[in-house]
Amino acid sequence: MPGRTARVTAVDTYDIRFPTSRGLDGSDAMNPDPDYSAAYVVLRTDAEGGPEGHGFAFTIGRGNEVQVAAIHALRHHVVGRSVEEVCADPGTLYRDLVGDSQLRWLGPEKGVLHMAIGAVVNAVWDLAAKRAGKPLWRLLAEAEPEWLVGQVDFRHLTDALTPGEALDLLRRGRRGAAERTARLLEGGYPAYTTSPGWLGYDDDKLTRLAARAVADGFRQIKLKVGADLDDDVRRCRVARSAVGPDVRMAVDANQRWDVAEAIRWTRALAEFGPYWVEEPTSPDDVLGHAAIRRAVAPVKVATGEHVPNRIVFKQLLQADAVDIVQIDAARVGGVNENLAVLLLAARYGVPVCPHAGGVGLCELVQHLSMFDYVALSGTTEDRVIEYVDHLHEHFLDPVVIREGHYTAPTAPGFSAAMRPESIARYTYPGGAFWAADPGGTRNTAEDRARDGTRERDGTASETAKGRAV
Amino acid sequence: MPGRTARVTAVDTYDIRFPTSRGLDGSDAMNPDPDYSAAYVVLRTDAEGGPEGHGFAFTIGRGNEVQVAAIHALRHHVVGRSVEEVCADPGTLYRDLVGDSQLRWLGPEKGVLHMAIGAVVNAVWDLAAKRAGKPLWRLLAEAEPEWLVGQVDFRHLTDALTPGEALDLLRRGRRGAAERTARLLEGGYPAYTTSPGWLGYDDDKLTRLAARAVADGFRQIKLKVGADLDDDVRRCRVARSAVGPDVRMAVDANQRWDVAEAIRWTRALAEFGPYWVEEPTSPDDVLGHAAIRRAVAPVKVATGEHVPNRIVFKQLLQADAVDIVQIDAARVGGVNENLAVLLLAARYGVPVCPHAGGVGLCELVQHLSMFDYVALSGTTEDRVIEYVDHLHEHFLDPVVIREGHYTAPTAPGFSAAMRPESIARYTYPGGAFWAADPGGTRNTAEDRARDGTRERDGTASETAKGRAV
Repeated sequence: MPGRTARVTAVDTYDIRFPTSRGLDGSDAMNPDPDYSAAYVVLRTDAEGGPEGHGFAFTIGRGNEVQVAAIHALRHHVVGRSVEEVCADPGTLYRDLVGDSQLRWLGPEKGVLHMAIGAVVNAVWDLAAKRAGKPLWRLLAEAEPEWLVGQVDFRHLTDALTPGEALDLLRRGRRGAAERTARLLEGGYPAYTTSPGWLGYDDDKLTRLAARAVADGFRQIKLKVGADLDDDVRRCRVARSAVGPDVRMAVDANQRWDVAEAIRWTRALAEFGPYWVEEPTSPDDVLGHAAIRRAVAPVKVATGEHVPNRIVFKQLLQADAVDIVQIDAARVGGVNENLAVLLLAARYGVPVCPHAGGVGLCELVQHLSMFDYVALSGTTEDRVIEYVDHLHEHFLDPVVIREGHYTAPTAPGFSAAMRPESIARYTYPGGAFWAADPGGTRNTAEDRARDGTRERDGTASETAKGRAV
Repeated sequence: MPGRTARVTAVDTYDIRFPTSRGLDGSDAMNPDPDYSAAYVVLRTDAEGGPEGHGFAFTIGRGNEVQVAAIHALRHHVVGRSVEEVCADPGTLYRDLVGDSQLRWLGPEKGVLHMAIGAVVNAVWDLAAKRAGKPLWRLLAEAEPEWLVGQVDFRHLTDALTPGEALDLLRRGRRGAAERTARLLEGGYPAYTTSPGWLGYDDDKLTRLAARAVADGFRQIKLKVGADLDDDVRRCRVARSAVGPDVRMAVDANQRWDVAEAIRWTRALAEFGPYWVEEPTSPDDVLGHAAIRRAVAPVKVATGEHVPNRIVFKQLLQADAVDIVQIDAARVGGVNENLAVLLLAARYGVPVCPHAGGVGLCELVQHLSMFDYVALSGTTEDRVIEYVDHLHEHFLDPVVIREGHYTAPTAPGFSAAMRPESIARYTYPGGAFWAADPGGTRNTAEDRARDGTRERDGTASETAKGRAV
């Protein structure tokens, strides 16, 4: 190490998997049995007593090792960098990662490689926020607009958003930021909950959890739909009657439908007053979403958790294809690309209601919405962050929900760090949980069929109970 | 093994890399120094004396190990399957792979995981064609229309193409197939060549290779553009003067431009009469391509080598965004998804001119165009397959070009199999070539800068000379 410049010394990766499939938490029409997993990354430095940067890509089980391999393939871009320089300008690293001409072929800017870039970039932001002594939302909200514009890659965006327009939006966004910060710290940011609505839950559990959500202060719930129309009609009726007429109820098809089917199905549920229909079709289908939106109004159309990058978000907005933009903290190329998406949404006047849940997605994405409120859109009207009460107990700085609102984090960083004992226990396949698991992971359909009875009966699985804060 | 049912016994993978960056073959505005690579897969069976199935995903160097890991992650879907069943209906395996609910999260249907699916599915088709004793194009062209329709996944397509419409297209396509087969076997399928036009070549080399292309019988060449407008104007002038007014000249920007820039740049090159402009902007930008196409006519717009799946191709056609559909044999989910794209293109009356080059892409994709000619579109008018004279010497059944035409393969299979000695020599990092290479792979920008002089001087690199058939 030349002189006293602190450097990134290692990019350590971990394959962490939670056996969530055993309780049917997280079950939807496209994902019947997810094992929520993280391809987890720690940036280590030689700064004496200095913090580490934590980040992760979220997956749902099988293939998490491929995601880990992709993060590993990026390490040469990171190791040896000056900690000070990379934290002062994460955008340079982000552009270097996206611009690696050989790795780019594996996307470009989509899928496994792009999520790996997001994990590394987010870990840098975690490091930067820790070194700044601020929660990430605050670091972003207090940053100079010019600097924020420099964090965005405008390539393939300028027909919808130029750097000059972005700068205007950010300058306007700062007016009144101090007041909004105070309001945020006091009251938090509105949340909605998906916990009642998993497809694998029976009507009693749905009723109980829906009523509980309202009692807990949530003003919106969400139901998974799309597997069977009769079931969905019944479940929507059950849920509507549990929450009453004034609580918003969204439905989420997780990409199951073709365009005509999405229109037909959504209309069939219209009598229960769904607020939005989420992922009605392929996340790649901009024109399909536009056709659906025209046909199902006043039901709103929402998508984004699987939208691979800013270029597809741009088109969803250009084509008037969505009413709600659902960013995901771990799908695109990290904070930098999500800044681009937040700016695009602001430019088109479309509210951002993040996707969260899984493992750690709530922890991350709250920071982006809070920045958006304080220093960009300036409002929480018609804006909610998804909340799911799973797996928060594994994080050092877990989200805190009060009266249906996310409490603003105050600890420095991006809230990304998992507890060391959770990392050790759920590392796959060598961690204590998996090593002791007689079934191992079920890698084949036959395995799953064989294990089915045991799993479906496992109502009190180790991780099924989220921390209900 | 129960009874005498032959099974798939192994999915073996190989990380194969060729040091093509050393001769600047393959250099373009987005990919200055590719090392053409294959994440290669061999399906082994216990059928006595039976063939293996070969396939691969194409990458350009770094990250090929991630692509290999993704193929490895699919093996449990393949090992143990009945060889006869999987060959009689590759569509079932294809749907199982795409439908793996946990792996799906890593795409969905895009990037590393999807290319891995393509490699495995293509290996199955190679196996099926070998067992049928036919080259793949012929197996497809002689298949029953009903069976072909069953090979296609219509999910997210039916607003543009229904199974019934596909069946009609295939039934109509068969009329006159015998005559076209005879014509194809006699005269081959038209090719165009990109060999003269790499960005790293100087004007003399461009002139020499362009004139040579015409002398060899090609009626179309292609130039890489997009790095510097003045250079491109000069190079287009040089190339046009070398080939004369009657040979078509396409230009390829490899995604470098934003929409306005693409329009401006293409118009600046219009005086040289480019036939098409390829990848003018992000492959994800359907609306951007549509805007560019409206603005640059009569120059045609072509894209597809990085289009991740059939859903984006669908939209390019729905939005009148392209004049030319460029399928790639190894980007989407294999033969099955390319069947969908060929059917979509036929439905919209848009010619398909495949992307090829790299390593082995010519060998694969010729089969798809030949099927399209014999049994679907029924014509080669305004249709050409890209040809690049690199690395064919590594294949057991390499493409044969005569008078600017691809000769129809007659050997059974998908022409995917590499020579065993090439696999051994170029396996990374342990193969004889890489083990002996003092520079290793250059994994960092610093390494590349350090090695730059040596590489740029290496005009007679081991693999720079393609077999000019």
